[in-house]
Amino acid sequence: MAKINSRYQKVSQGYFSTEIAKRAKPFLDSHPGAEIYRLGIGNTTEAIVPSVIEGLRKGVEKLAKTETYTGYGDEQGDSRLREAISKWYAKRAVSVEPSAVFVSDGAKSDCANIPSIFSDDAVVAVSDPGYPVHREAAVISGKKVVSMECLEKNNFMPTMPERADLLYICSPNNPTGTVATRKQLESFVAYARKNKAIIIFDAAYSEYVSDQALPRSIYEIEGAKSCAIEIQSLSKAAGFTGVRLGWTIVPKELQTEDGAEGMLNRFWSRRQTTMFNGASNIAQEGGLAVLSPKGQRETHEQVAYYMENARIIREGLSAAKMTIHGGVDAPYIWLQCPRGLSSWEFFDELLTKAHVIATPGIVFGKGGEGYMRISAFGHREDVEKAVHSIRKNFGTIA
Amino acid sequence: MAKINSRYQKVSQGYFSTEIAKRAKPFLDSHPGAEIYRLGIGNTTEAIVPSVIEGLRKGVEKLAKTETYTGYGDEQGDSRLREAISKWYAKRAVSVEPSAVFVSDGAKSDCANIPSIFSDDAVVAVSDPGYPVHREAAVISGKKVVSMECLEKNNFMPTMPERADLLYICSPNNPTGTVATRKQLESFVAYARKNKAIIIFDAAYSEYVSDQALPRSIYEIEGAKSCAIEIQSLSKAAGFTGVRLGWTIVPKELQTEDGAEGMLNRFWSRRQTTMFNGASNIAQEGGLAVLSPKGQRETHEQVAYYMENARIIREGLSAAKMTIHGGVDAPYIWLQCPRGLSSWEFFDELLTKAHVIATPGIVFGKGGEGYMRISAFGHREDVEKAVHSIRKNFGTIA
Repeated sequence: MAKINSRYQKVSQGYFSTEIAKRAKPFLDSHPGAEIYRLGIGNTTEAIVPSVIEGLRKGVEKLAKTETYTGYGDEQGDSRLREAISKWYAKRAVSVEPSAVFVSDGAKSDCANIPSIFSDDAVVAVSDPGYPVHREAAVISGKKVVSMECLEKNNFMPTMPERADLLYICSPNNPTGTVATRKQLESFVAYARKNKAIIIFDAAYSEYVSDQALPRSIYEIEGAKSCAIEIQSLSKAAGFTGVRLGWTIVPKELQTEDGAEGMLNRFWSRRQTTMFNGASNIAQEGGLAVLSPKGQRETHEQVAYYMENARIIREGLSAAKMTIHGGVDAPYIWLQCPRGLSSWEFFDELLTKAHVIATPGIVFGKGGEGYMRISAFGHREDVEKAVHSIRKNFGTIA
Repeated sequence: MAKINSRYQKVSQGYFSTEIAKRAKPFLDSHPGAEIYRLGIGNTTEAIVPSVIEGLRKGVEKLAKTETYTGYGDEQGDSRLREAISKWYAKRAVSVEPSAVFVSDGAKSDCANIPSIFSDDAVVAVSDPGYPVHREAAVISGKKVVSMECLEKNNFMPTMPERADLLYICSPNNPTGTVATRKQLESFVAYARKNKAIIIFDAAYSEYVSDQALPRSIYEIEGAKSCAIEIQSLSKAAGFTGVRLGWTIVPKELQTEDGAEGMLNRFWSRRQTTMFNGASNIAQEGGLAVLSPKGQRETHEQVAYYMENARIIREGLSAAKMTIHGGVDAPYIWLQCPRGLSSWEFFDELLTKAHVIATPGIVFGKGGEGYMRISAFGHREDVEKAVHSIRKNFGTIA
């Protein structure tokens, strides 16, 4: 007699994008002609850059000829790609062995599945507010979850938990758009080493950091290899939100209470070869192109395009006398709702008055109440229109 | 203090392809010039057919222009593709709603992850021999596993378990190459309905069935929608082993002991939107092409190519006086090891005498001991050489 996993009832019915769509629907239905400006979901909007398109084309053409056709790929991902990732880190003075690299279909899957290699009784610490996947995947899989507050009084840095075995740290942060300093990451690494905890470092937005003093990889911090797993993604770095490609670094040096050296690396290998079958070979060929010198130049230009959007949003919101955080080295602006409004109240106001859809902070956890996440992903023209509409409807343009 | 998931130590260190590579290595290293014929892993070898290449190209070109670029896709998969899948079933007189279709990156992930929507104490019945993922994913995730023997005395059909909540049934079968008849599937559906169990029907090889009397979908059986989830893959049907695309059907009609109607469908939706982020949009565009009339014609021709390989292998092995099963409506031949040899003993003999690599039955479970799985995937020339080598070295060609 099959029974359901009732833990699915402990998370909201749909993923947050579904909730937002549902909430916006009545207004959209009753205003069929209205132009709506979407600054909600962090979804890329610009064409993939030419050198990467060339890589994807190459991936397809290889499959068109029997001599170059490939089926199942290398375990852990195309060895050329794993080499290229290792060299990409080396340019940042970070040493990562190709054998520690696991190519995946993106950061979401890896963030959600990585707890599988840890014991069922592991206590998982997640940021509040934070990327919902960190919390929800742990809840669904039955692990104990504790919250690390990320509030303004602490510069939106997670407060250290009293006890935790796994700690999700996301920097640049989704949703607050803030970035951990070297010193802050050093204190997390020190905490993890002292408590034999493991940091799951979600670095999906690292390419949005332009301040050279800010770390873009947890492995820039000494000792991190013994206590941190890093998850990367090309979704926002190269517009691969639909193409799907990322990777996870599981160092052989990781220390646990009971496992031998290299064990977590081996377990993750077993997890990925048994419960996953590799990223698409076409996407992997595209990933190789992203990491090429030309690909890096072109994708960084695209990141700069989105960051110019972020600048426009920041300036516009400031001009509208709104209080904002983030958005300098991250594609998200964390806006404090005016007049003490709740996130959903201000969501409705933004939508009905300015026709702007943003993400209510509360969907990222209780700590997000009273804030909105504004995303810098969008066509320039739409972003400008959205900002104009906010300024106009919130009183700073006549 | 992080601890490991020690259940990873209950499965062999590597996935079986790794084990085979390891076992073959000493011989390969000491015979560097030898030509080796690989009939081991079920990996496709022929170029993807022209109409599908065209679809994949279209997928890439859409990403090259901002007007056609797409980021995150529809939840559950591209709605055009889900419509096409629904119509594909309709042609087989099976009714599947697009809302029951979940597009994925392949059958392996879905087979491994589907138990997530069921309670932790679910008893999972897997075939022995069987596709290792069914058993190993359940072991790793901590569910109780029971074996259903699939032995010659029962025509390699799984024996009904005394008690089980989830039953993995794979037809056409990997590894035995046998196919369940309508009557046999009817008895499984009757068992599941009586016991409120859920069948996980792994249909990854359905396109290899040419006998029109044999069911290609569990939903051809009356009542199956209330008790069966079906998992499909384009890996073997369209050479997508590296491209990665499949789908899973979770009917809203499914009945469980405690869940309301539609609940499992909703839970799987939540699982996939939280712990997965959709199949690559390029692969999905390819999938649409596979399901087009031209794509169906061309991919069925490719299946026929592999099935001609199967015929050549069957005839060759029979001529070598070997006892074989399967390989008629499935791309695998199940060979009984001669002279009472164990699978690994015969693996060594095949390799050292005939330079052929096949898969020892024992990697599929205890019930596979004494058998070898011979795969029909390969270039015609290589398959012919392999068969010639077996016949020559096992005494039926002078």
